[in-house]
Amino acid sequence: MTHSDATWFHENFAATGSAVGFRVVRKLDEVQSPFQKIEIYETTDWGNLMLIDGAIMLTSRDNFLYHEMMSHPALFTHSNPKRVVIIGGGDCGTLREVLKHKEVEHVTQVDIDEQVTRMAEKYFPELCDCNADPRAELLFDDGIAYMQNAAPESLDLVIVDSTDPVGPAEGLFNQAFYQSCLNALRPGGILVQQSESPLAQIALIRAMRSAMKDAGFQSLRTISFPQPCYPTGWWSCTMARKHGELNVFRERGAASKAFTTRYYSLDTHRAAISLPPFVFEALEQKP
Amino acid sequence: MTHSDATWFHENFAATGSAVGFRVVRKLDEVQSPFQKIEIYETTDWGNLMLIDGAIMLTSRDNFLYHEMMSHPALFTHSNPKRVVIIGGGDCGTLREVLKHKEVEHVTQVDIDEQVTRMAEKYFPELCDCNADPRAELLFDDGIAYMQNAAPESLDLVIVDSTDPVGPAEGLFNQAFYQSCLNALRPGGILVQQSESPLAQIALIRAMRSAMKDAGFQSLRTISFPQPCYPTGWWSCTMARKHGELNVFRERGAASKAFTTRYYSLDTHRAAISLPPFVFEALEQKP
Repeated sequence: MTHSDATWFHENFAATGSAVGFRVVRKLDEVQSPFQKIEIYETTDWGNLMLIDGAIMLTSRDNFLYHEMMSHPALFTHSNPKRVVIIGGGDCGTLREVLKHKEVEHVTQVDIDEQVTRMAEKYFPELCDCNADPRAELLFDDGIAYMQNAAPESLDLVIVDSTDPVGPAEGLFNQAFYQSCLNALRPGGILVQQSESPLAQIALIRAMRSAMKDAGFQSLRTISFPQPCYPTGWWSCTMARKHGELNVFRERGAASKAFTTRYYSLDTHRAAISLPPFVFEALEQKP
Repeated sequence: MTHSDATWFHENFAATGSAVGFRVVRKLDEVQSPFQKIEIYETTDWGNLMLIDGAIMLTSRDNFLYHEMMSHPALFTHSNPKRVVIIGGGDCGTLREVLKHKEVEHVTQVDIDEQVTRMAEKYFPELCDCNADPRAELLFDDGIAYMQNAAPESLDLVIVDSTDPVGPAEGLFNQAFYQSCLNALRPGGILVQQSESPLAQIALIRAMRSAMKDAGFQSLRTISFPQPCYPTGWWSCTMARKHGELNVFRERGAASKAFTTRYYSLDTHRAAISLPPFVFEALEQKP
């Protein structure tokens, strides 16, 4: 492949003082929705690239890491997840992973911005190939209001697959939102939320965990995994459980799962919960 | 902190089509050695940053990940490592980690470029605070020739802590060099070499492993860990053993080690060897 017309796109991430970038061939599309600007680029080595308000959301090549790790660890920690809500997740990649679990009876995806899904259908069609599953429901609505109005004790798992805590996603990172999630979860239910870089944004993870605890969640667990397109290339999500522990998961289920994954496995699940000493210390989370 | 004078430095990595960058305040130093250009920048959030020929080598903030994972997994895999050689490693960060193991009797660091060490002493002094250890020997010489001339069966561990396989380091990634290492290792001895990104450079890892195998190493094991300042933020090293397996390590030793680490632990050692399915498949390495 020659790259005579290629240029470099860099996202300079002010909060971490670090940048991530990709070599791009051309801009494929751009739309200004009522909420944000969505851009799609073709890259030389990473397939298509989606930006929202200039921030890298996903590439074709590495999104499987994030989507698998936002879903399978929480699903294999819950004993029998039947009803799932995804807040955000408009690219439908997390939805696709959740639907791989046959015991899941219903998944509602609530993204405020329909244009994210329309762009994903066009430029990341592989992520949307389960959208017609009869168990899947796609809503384009305010996730904060959706969780406030959700029936009490009606859900097993809430996955918050959002952008950074600025703009439309800001209200997804506070105690009031977590309280809504707690109310909507059944006993043993789990909230899992993307929680940024464990090296560069530990203060944000601490604040999230503190707000989850204050909302009444009984146990917390932050896990980590690689994600090259996000700042520092090392990412995390944090699980919070209504009742019960987060120290164990269905290991036999993970080992004998009937579907294919590229990153997730019994071993990488164990690896994800094996945080290094400096993170355990910063989070005051026991190994 | 205000960053009124800050600019962004980006390393555009042609081989992966991806970039990593940091917000920098100013250039602190620059030297053109006989081998390469070494630059030091002050960053806003990552301490000092060293570049060699424009490629990011290390930052003050995240180098512990790489240095700990280049040393401790191999040292805890060997049953009784006494004599160690580090090829490259001029910043002395790997040397410092090796010297934490009391059973190590002698470590020789062979970096071709004395200026790397001189710059590290000045701008990364915390990495050099064990250089006066009587067990440590610092040579500034050609690592390829050094290994060719090493006494047969004289070493327990060879750590190749080099730059990318271009320029001075190119000769460290081929069968002839691996043959020299094999000859210099005692039975059960281990070679460990940094092996780039497991997501973006799997072909290079395959080629390295193939050359190690052809040189006569009996078993191979690639492990992975986060490293924000390197391309994709996800890095690997590959161990090759003269005789014996690489599937087990001294777990009790790792759990009860008498020294402090920030990333390495019994759990993160296990995590590092737990490669995801797509890497196992690409490397034809068994879980």
